[in-house]
Amino acid sequence: MRTVYVNGEYLPEDQAKVSVFDRGFLFADGVYEVTSVLGGKLIDFAGHAARLARSLSELGMKAPVDTDTLLEIHRELIARNGIEDGLVYLQVTRGAADRDFLYPDAETPPTLVLFTQAKPGLAEPDRAAKGWSVISIPDRRWGRRDIKTVQLLYPSMGKMMAKAAGADDAWMVEDGAVTEGTSNNAYIVKGDTIITRHLGEEILHGITRAAVLRLAAEAQMKVEERSFTIEEAQGADEAFITSASSFVMPVVEIDGTPIGDGTPGPMAARLREIYLDEARRKAV
Amino acid sequence: MRTVYVNGEYLPEDQAKVSVFDRGFLFADGVYEVTSVLGGKLIDFAGHAARLARSLSELGMKAPVDTDTLLEIHRELIARNGIEDGLVYLQVTRGAADRDFLYPDAETPPTLVLFTQAKPGLAEPDRAAKGWSVISIPDRRWGRRDIKTVQLLYPSMGKMMAKAAGADDAWMVEDGAVTEGTSNNAYIVKGDTIITRHLGEEILHGITRAAVLRLAAEAQMKVEERSFTIEEAQGADEAFITSASSFVMPVVEIDGTPIGDGTPGPMAARLREIYLDEARRKAV
Repeated sequence: MRTVYVNGEYLPEDQAKVSVFDRGFLFADGVYEVTSVLGGKLIDFAGHAARLARSLSELGMKAPVDTDTLLEIHRELIARNGIEDGLVYLQVTRGAADRDFLYPDAETPPTLVLFTQAKPGLAEPDRAAKGWSVISIPDRRWGRRDIKTVQLLYPSMGKMMAKAAGADDAWMVEDGAVTEGTSNNAYIVKGDTIITRHLGEEILHGITRAAVLRLAAEAQMKVEERSFTIEEAQGADEAFITSASSFVMPVVEIDGTPIGDGTPGPMAARLREIYLDEARRKAV
Repeated sequence: MRTVYVNGEYLPEDQAKVSVFDRGFLFADGVYEVTSVLGGKLIDFAGHAARLARSLSELGMKAPVDTDTLLEIHRELIARNGIEDGLVYLQVTRGAADRDFLYPDAETPPTLVLFTQAKPGLAEPDRAAKGWSVISIPDRRWGRRDIKTVQLLYPSMGKMMAKAAGADDAWMVEDGAVTEGTSNNAYIVKGDTIITRHLGEEILHGITRAAVLRLAAEAQMKVEERSFTIEEAQGADEAFITSASSFVMPVVEIDGTPIGDGTPGPMAARLREIYLDEARRKAV
């Protein structure tokens, strides 16, 4: 049985509980991060810790512990649960208080929960060998997708729509342009240029996105940060997504249309390789 | 200490907990209802039960118990907590499962939580004597507001924006038209006509809204269901909101502009009276 961290305690997972008055449960008033573990080490912990701090700040929420303590908790859970490859999930909420749309008083302690998920072979090449097929769906999420909140019902519905269509994921479309996947950033490749939506309140500011774009630039690849349509994506040479848990994942089909020759492309493969090389080298 | 209902058990509130793996906590994958209690009896329980069934159906979620059992639980909590005037809050989630955007298998038991809040004098006339001032804010919620989900972070932020502005609530505006308040439906009165937004995915289908519009029609008042702007509202003769816990509440100021003479209007007062008369008479 897994060990789960809840507000200072390491508990067996069947005893890992939060109050029904927790604002994460009643109002989705909480934020989260998912950090990958490869070889027992954390991938880009600093990036996730920085984004967590930003999410908390945007919502006027307190950090429950400092970054060093957060790192210790991550490592303790990895050790206790014997995670070689997998994920550490963390969630912070505004804490438990009698139900009221108004935030509780500032002294209310935030809730901090962390748990692990073992994913043996998470970065193995065979996971990316086939590539993903995606469908497009309207983006019906709230307006502040740059804040990583637990308001994930629509992405969850999108993943179910994809499954029902026999696809692996859904790309969301707003005002004619792709925003992102259900839990990942979306990219296309045209010639030697990587195109991905510019940052803004419309998309999550992916930690993996930032690393991949930096590495692409270092490798002399051209990067354009701008909107693109499903039609442009269907006519692209390649497509792929990035996320903390899928790294760089080729997309080989969009709404039934094969991308390029319908197999994973070389740019995605190259980016996956250089991303994973650096990620493993810098893992903590 | 309150008694809270959690999945078949009546527990002291400090022991009322859900798993950290509950999809209500991790994905806001849950729906809720709030039913008022006046004189120890439930107001429009049947309406709330019907809307709950619709919310569950729209999300492909199972009902945890049948409506008769739900009524029994409501009554048991009212009795155990000695609620004369107040609220019963109920929440259903898709249950606890290892974290995955895909829904867990259909056998996963849903989570059912209910608790009470005592609100002595909830329907007393002095609560509506002054009326509310509201501010307008952009509506940045997700697209399916007709499903009563716990994705309430933006309405909660809106209530905080109102408080910061010295107001009582916020009316949300989308594409130039008022959608609704943070947890209530919005109305204006021009001459002898009550105007409120038509139903659709853009707003909650208020139980109190349905009752008030029916009673207004029965009282020979004219009702128009259509969009209106903040400017039109500021120029109206009256404004008000309806909700299960505020019933009919006059709005006397919008973005600093007094409505009519800046005091509660006669139509709102009349509707509050006939609504509360019927609600008490039909309470169960």
